[in-house]
Amino acid sequence: MYKIPFSAPYSEPAGSPIRELFPFLSRPGMISLAGGYPSAGLFDQVGLQQACLRAMESPGQSLQYCATEGLPALRERLKEVSSARGVHCELEQLIVTTGSQQAFDLLVRVLVEPGNCVYVESPTYPATLQALRLAQSKIVQIPMDAMGIRIDALEAMLAKAPSDERPKLLYTVPNFSNPAGTLLPRERREALVQLALRYGFLIVEDDPYGALDFGSGTPPTLFELAGELAPDRNPVLYLSSLSKTVAPALRIGWMIVPRDVSRRCAIAKQTTDLCSSSLAQMIAAEYLNGGGADVAIEAARKEYGLRMRHMSAALRDQLGERASFVEPAGGMFIWLQTTREFDPKRLFEASVEAGVLFVPGRAFFEADADLHCMRLTYASPDCGQISEGIARLGHAFDAAK
Amino acid sequence: MYKIPFSAPYSEPAGSPIRELFPFLSRPGMISLAGGYPSAGLFDQVGLQQACLRAMESPGQSLQYCATEGLPALRERLKEVSSARGVHCELEQLIVTTGSQQAFDLLVRVLVEPGNCVYVESPTYPATLQALRLAQSKIVQIPMDAMGIRIDALEAMLAKAPSDERPKLLYTVPNFSNPAGTLLPRERREALVQLALRYGFLIVEDDPYGALDFGSGTPPTLFELAGELAPDRNPVLYLSSLSKTVAPALRIGWMIVPRDVSRRCAIAKQTTDLCSSSLAQMIAAEYLNGGGADVAIEAARKEYGLRMRHMSAALRDQLGERASFVEPAGGMFIWLQTTREFDPKRLFEASVEAGVLFVPGRAFFEADADLHCMRLTYASPDCGQISEGIARLGHAFDAAK
Repeated sequence: MYKIPFSAPYSEPAGSPIRELFPFLSRPGMISLAGGYPSAGLFDQVGLQQACLRAMESPGQSLQYCATEGLPALRERLKEVSSARGVHCELEQLIVTTGSQQAFDLLVRVLVEPGNCVYVESPTYPATLQALRLAQSKIVQIPMDAMGIRIDALEAMLAKAPSDERPKLLYTVPNFSNPAGTLLPRERREALVQLALRYGFLIVEDDPYGALDFGSGTPPTLFELAGELAPDRNPVLYLSSLSKTVAPALRIGWMIVPRDVSRRCAIAKQTTDLCSSSLAQMIAAEYLNGGGADVAIEAARKEYGLRMRHMSAALRDQLGERASFVEPAGGMFIWLQTTREFDPKRLFEASVEAGVLFVPGRAFFEADADLHCMRLTYASPDCGQISEGIARLGHAFDAAK
Repeated sequence: MYKIPFSAPYSEPAGSPIRELFPFLSRPGMISLAGGYPSAGLFDQVGLQQACLRAMESPGQSLQYCATEGLPALRERLKEVSSARGVHCELEQLIVTTGSQQAFDLLVRVLVEPGNCVYVESPTYPATLQALRLAQSKIVQIPMDAMGIRIDALEAMLAKAPSDERPKLLYTVPNFSNPAGTLLPRERREALVQLALRYGFLIVEDDPYGALDFGSGTPPTLFELAGELAPDRNPVLYLSSLSKTVAPALRIGWMIVPRDVSRRCAIAKQTTDLCSSSLAQMIAAEYLNGGGADVAIEAARKEYGLRMRHMSAALRDQLGERASFVEPAGGMFIWLQTTREFDPKRLFEASVEAGVLFVPGRAFFEADADLHCMRLTYASPDCGQISEGIARLGHAFDAAK
């Protein structure tokens, strides 16, 4: 093949560290605690089939193109879903996207130029890092503790940042972050919004997991708090998704943003894909019209809570003092810190050998990676697989010592 | 609202000239000859419903995420569909996208940097112009005649282009172009590929309409011809879509490109939306597995041919010497040139007044717009609406004189 002149960010792009795990996944008997997939067993198959049939009854609408901003019926439903979380908006502020990943990508297009600084959590979601890298932005990670972003550290960073390191955006998952599993307390949320107002940056509040709490609820969203603190200049761009609560296959995400932003994101989306699948949107709208979603989400919260407790007990049992973690209050992930005696590379290899897969910590850092950590999911494996998987992880710790 | 610092291309982006027509569309009784929508009446509703039901039988697959490159079963089917058109490839070269618009957007991301020169047809598809504008590329339009791109003009432009006006990409719709409706003859296709090889640019061959010929077929694709001329360095990136042949709502497009390109486009797509709707992909795969697609496409070819002839006759009848056009041999559009005596703005206003909508010519040009032309579609209106719509257009010509 002759040499093709690729654009600079794509001349030698690194692949996704999670995709690098795919070859191991296909090994016979492998138990994966690595993916970010919700449990297929919890999908409301019957309810979605019925929604599918209802959608197909009006082919003129469900089989044709739809508006770039989304199918009107679905936008109305998502506005209601958001409103029930305290995120109130005008319809013009809401755009349906192909998952919340596309919402973030559109925001990066309309807001971030090469060299612009974007703050993210440390650790943070790998696809966010990748999107920012390919947009050639300057990525800065903010330290976290067991409760999420450390406001003291953030404030110190902002205060001393030279002008080219002032963030244009800050990306955060306040509800059950990926990978850390943290839930940001209300006081920190208010402080974060205040800092955004003071230093003039926008906050991308990504909220795919908020509905998956294990019983203790979540504080108000940043969007809602900011709306109270600064109704005329709310700096929060709210994203959410049906991927973790209804089904990833619909690829339905949405953003709620100021009209200036939504108008530009619609223009960006038009050149990106014209519109998301109107059939998938119609199915989602029909499904949300029925009462099945609440029942399915309630079942998922219970089951994920059970699995999380099962995994936590197994981890304490099998790993003891060799690793530590904070039990998450919702979401899909446990973030495990190992003691320094375990070489991360040897531990990963021993785990693959033992037949269990996790995502090594380095995937979640841009620089200064903390290698002595890993992300485990309890969402897709059942309790039996979790027991066996963590037992295998215990063997891997033994072998890697 | 306070001032948000948008990225340069989005600081004051122009909206789509076609979307500007939306407010007129909702006027009672308006007949639209403007959109690029296929006829909803031709969708194989029953076949798609059955495909939907079959897809929902395996929720583990149809409701979960899928690989960024696409659902394996659908990639196999699209490989076969392409192969039947003479476009042969390895599976690794084929990526499923959210419509062919996303395929183009991904190619722009991985290949085009701000300031890079891209050649397009004159007139060309507005969403292509918009994507290139927002990518800050230098757009150059190549003159066309009734047979498509004028190779003599292209060759002259290439020969005298300073180095910063050498194209990196050339975008073309050889089969029934949008809006011009032209079908590029085989000799011009070969000459175009030769020029790409000689001057070192890539060709994006967008082929959404190739299956919709009215009986006389199409010459081999640029991809196939280039494969024969230069098997080791095929410069053609082939795009197609199910939007015009099966249903737009699935939003299923695909690209067939060298592996170096597909690998990078998969990385770009991952940050863009992780994957296209796997449910829509599963439905498309199930539908293509059945025999319904061929029957539906055959019905569409016949019906569109009929409507095109009906519109052509009505245009000759109602407009006589006041406008000229070449009857397309396939696709969805008639490109109408009016005589210079008609002021385009007055003609558009008189048409809206008369209750018929078309897309004014300026939408299809980056600069030096030929304003004395318009795009008419015969795909979505039925013959009765076409008769009435063209009669109204005749009245508008009378009024605008």
